[in-house]
Amino acid sequence: MKPQGLLLVLSGPSGAGKGTICKALLEQRSDLVYSVSCTTRPPRKGEISGVNYIFTNHEDFEDMINNKGFLEHASVYGNYYGTPRAYVLEQLKAGKDVVLEIDTQGALQVKENFPDGVFVFIVPPSLDELSKRIYNRGTDAEDVIKRRLSAATSELAYASKYDYIVVNDEVEKATSKVSKIMDVEHLRVGRTFYIVDEICKRCKKEEC
Amino acid sequence: MKPQGLLLVLSGPSGAGKGTICKALLEQRSDLVYSVSCTTRPPRKGEISGVNYIFTNHEDFEDMINNKGFLEHASVYGNYYGTPRAYVLEQLKAGKDVVLEIDTQGALQVKENFPDGVFVFIVPPSLDELSKRIYNRGTDAEDVIKRRLSAATSELAYASKYDYIVVNDEVEKATSKVSKIMDVEHLRVGRTFYIVDEICKRCKKEEC
Repeated sequence: MKPQGLLLVLSGPSGAGKGTICKALLEQRSDLVYSVSCTTRPPRKGEISGVNYIFTNHEDFEDMINNKGFLEHASVYGNYYGTPRAYVLEQLKAGKDVVLEIDTQGALQVKENFPDGVFVFIVPPSLDELSKRIYNRGTDAEDVIKRRLSAATSELAYASKYDYIVVNDEVEKATSKVSKIMDVEHLRVGRTFYIVDEICKRCKKEEC
Repeated sequence: MKPQGLLLVLSGPSGAGKGTICKALLEQRSDLVYSVSCTTRPPRKGEISGVNYIFTNHEDFEDMINNKGFLEHASVYGNYYGTPRAYVLEQLKAGKDVVLEIDTQGALQVKENFPDGVFVFIVPPSLDELSKRIYNRGTDAEDVIKRRLSAATSELAYASKYDYIVVNDEVEKATSKVSKIMDVEHLRVGRTFYIVDEICKRCKKEEC
């Protein structure tokens, strides 16, 4: 019997580095697939439907919302974004692990709809470091940076809703921690009890 | 702030190899200490009190039971055996991880008294393999072996009460899995939330 895959939800304040860790994990773990989001925003040049996003229209998206077709969804600047439930569940059923890289609001919606997921909160080693990272992007004005930092602090308050907290001081170390979390979550009793069950069944047959 | 240590409870049917894994873990992890049991049985030649066991008498042992001084205890062939609560809690408070290697009855008592422990159930890859291991000890008669196997099967029924199941197919692999479980359990939100708390406190001071 092949056990079901894991749903890994990587979240945390912007600037914590969840995107970089997600990319590194996908390179390292061949059993891991990325959940492609669905959106109503028009494709940009070079974007391929099914790879970057699944592109759809407002009507179809709202139908999917009504049919509980999303693990989470949000509206940003008039466009919808969402994680299609069916794709994720199919992959898990086939024994593949699935990763979602998502903001805290989305992660909490996923937790309501799929509490069996593994919820990892990525944090920067300090707010100084977060501030440096946002400054180093070099694209934002002073007040935008302050707003971002303030938002990041508010998001930290959600950390207690997650299963694990991983400090992203170095990407390689943090990625290795998240990868270990996945290995270990596969050993959880809810995911491994079938092994004991099989031993017991065989035993009953042999009348031991 | 130094976080509290982990209480690791290694359990499983006899012949699963929990003792071997426990020994290997203690060699590999310098932050791990072994919880020495207390007993009323007389010391054997060469045994040192405080190293092999803490040797005590019936009266003192029963006083400790009445004062809730044990995380678990049992009476075997007229002698008491128990895990002293104070020693374990002191070590954990000092930030040390503690390992108990214990049978299923004891593990379930520990779970009642200390639900924050990490409960790992070690299983043999198959009953055939368990049977081979018990045969290979070469000391038991046929009916004793059958009794042991039957007891092992009954103990498997307790697996669902644990947090993790680790199949001991190769000692090195199984030890590495348990070691990973310890690393990852240190990342659990209940044990890492203080990091976020510290970031937030610093942030309030700096009024960001």
